[in-house]
Amino acid sequence: MNRIDRVVEHMKARNLSQLIVSDPKSIWYLTGVDVEPYERLFAFRISADGKHSFFLNRLYNVSDTGFEEVWFSDTDDSIGMIAERINPAVPLGIDKEWKAGFLIPLLERCPGLTPVLASDCVDDCRAVKDAAEIELMKKASAINDEVNTLASEYVREGMTEKEVAAFIDQAFLDRGCSGNSFTTIVSFGANAADPHHEPDDTRVREGDCVLIDMGCVWKRYCSDMTRTFFFRKAAPEQIRIHDLVREANEKAESIIRPGVRFCDIDAAARDLISEAGYGEYFNHRLGHFIGQTDHEKGDVSSANERVAEPGMIFSIEPGIYLPGDFGVRVEDLVLVTEDGCELLNKTDKHWKIIGG
Amino acid sequence: MNRIDRVVEHMKARNLSQLIVSDPKSIWYLTGVDVEPYERLFAFRISADGKHSFFLNRLYNVSDTGFEEVWFSDTDDSIGMIAERINPAVPLGIDKEWKAGFLIPLLERCPGLTPVLASDCVDDCRAVKDAAEIELMKKASAINDEVNTLASEYVREGMTEKEVAAFIDQAFLDRGCSGNSFTTIVSFGANAADPHHEPDDTRVREGDCVLIDMGCVWKRYCSDMTRTFFFRKAAPEQIRIHDLVREANEKAESIIRPGVRFCDIDAAARDLISEAGYGEYFNHRLGHFIGQTDHEKGDVSSANERVAEPGMIFSIEPGIYLPGDFGVRVEDLVLVTEDGCELLNKTDKHWKIIGG
Repeated sequence: MNRIDRVVEHMKARNLSQLIVSDPKSIWYLTGVDVEPYERLFAFRISADGKHSFFLNRLYNVSDTGFEEVWFSDTDDSIGMIAERINPAVPLGIDKEWKAGFLIPLLERCPGLTPVLASDCVDDCRAVKDAAEIELMKKASAINDEVNTLASEYVREGMTEKEVAAFIDQAFLDRGCSGNSFTTIVSFGANAADPHHEPDDTRVREGDCVLIDMGCVWKRYCSDMTRTFFFRKAAPEQIRIHDLVREANEKAESIIRPGVRFCDIDAAARDLISEAGYGEYFNHRLGHFIGQTDHEKGDVSSANERVAEPGMIFSIEPGIYLPGDFGVRVEDLVLVTEDGCELLNKTDKHWKIIGG
Repeated sequence: MNRIDRVVEHMKARNLSQLIVSDPKSIWYLTGVDVEPYERLFAFRISADGKHSFFLNRLYNVSDTGFEEVWFSDTDDSIGMIAERINPAVPLGIDKEWKAGFLIPLLERCPGLTPVLASDCVDDCRAVKDAAEIELMKKASAINDEVNTLASEYVREGMTEKEVAAFIDQAFLDRGCSGNSFTTIVSFGANAADPHHEPDDTRVREGDCVLIDMGCVWKRYCSDMTRTFFFRKAAPEQIRIHDLVREANEKAESIIRPGVRFCDIDAAARDLISEAGYGEYFNHRLGHFIGQTDHEKGDVSSANERVAEPGMIFSIEPGIYLPGDFGVRVEDLVLVTEDGCELLNKTDKHWKIIGG
């Protein structure tokens, strides 16, 4: 079944006959049409009757989509053109990315229309990768493994976080990646206690943890991995925390197979950390889905009671963050297989001293 | 008057007593709080009674905002927390950036609530730059001028668009910029007939036009300029088209002063091009506002009947795009002053041969 037909099946299961898809990555996924609209309107309307429509600004370099094409200029009433093709008497599915700047005017033009958040119709398809997507994601993770190791060898006395991040970013480009899948995180010492710290001019010092969270984009698909090292020496507490985080990572990965609930995967890691007394210092979900973007719909958290299916790819990334002191995170990407799972990252994850 | 108070004045003029601001750049502009939320909820509620609230994920590295702080975790009902602080009996202003993934659930939680697109309350403040913002934007444009000239000197026989773009991007970083304000456009020959062409492996050849549209970010603020050169030689038609586009650019800039309508600025350039018979090949608005993002709210187009005010900064970028042949665009940033305007770009814009 082609990708649009799979979406229509999801729509029918939800009694939806019309859906506006606005996420450019979803539109590419469904149609192969690749547009970066910036602040302009770009939408694909899926209709359960099989008559789908594109809404396209004349500035977009698009032709022969194979679907109805509704073209407009910057000064045209583009929302009106969508309104004409919507049935206001039945609910309209909307994807989660559509901005209020388009949605509110459409609601005003279609009095009585009920908008329904229906990204899942597309996102649930995107969450299960096909063979071609899996190959691309394996390649992206292989590059990530390679560059992570090079980066860990590159760190030297007095180097700044920014310098290490720049090395990683350049190494991705040198290997033909189109860029990063997110801003590279390099955190030394206490900076690592902020899970989302951005690289600054902090210089590495003996005894610092060196947390590197990185990912590249290979032919549209992302990688994402974290390893935490210690510079020149490691204190017993640092080693103990690192062992604990790694064991939580491995514990969670050990139970992943089709049918396991994501909340149970999260609990496997979280319980281990909580039992050791560090529950409050693991203050984020265990993982997130990934594909064309680093964070796709779907998370590995206590709130997600859905089950893993073959083809799903997500991160497993427990962490412990001790404010003012240091932080450790160990993250892999995991592919659910028919009878278990496969780690897309092969880099060793035991604690390790770097810095020569 | 501080920035939030100015927004409240705009709200009162529109009979709005509550407004959800979600654009992280607007929130920084109003509060100084700097968060990149990615797909997570991040919002600032402005209330006409002066009691404003932040909605913050515990992952954000934020403290002591000086406003009510409503904190939540990934697994909390964050939309419910907003719903509790909304008055469903009166309209709720929403900024144009808020995603359907948050807006639709909030509407479901607040039956009868009327959402009103009210970005203008903030965007109209952001459109008028203060002295500190103007200094940053002048600096960003000075860097852009410098790097544009270097790039035009860098282009050599056989070079690809990607190579020239990479040179520009690196030159921005070398000068301390945080990055580009948009993906650098380098278009050779017929590629320039697509206004939004992305650099590829096309190699420059004698007689090609070389269109370079570029911008950097300097301390959060953007630049944006286009110059079109000719490689080694120029045909008479290329020169004629370039002169026409430059004259359209200069004609528009010559009438900019407080009180002039944007549609009239657009017409000044467009009429010149149309009278010469190329109206259909100038297929976009004349310009756009710019500030923290390359394209901010506000455009210089036939649809905008508002008038210029001192402190506004926008682009003037007429173009002529001849499919299969070549394209020319000439773009400056312009600051409206008390009695006229000042060009932020100083780079010469007459047609010019490059390539040694």
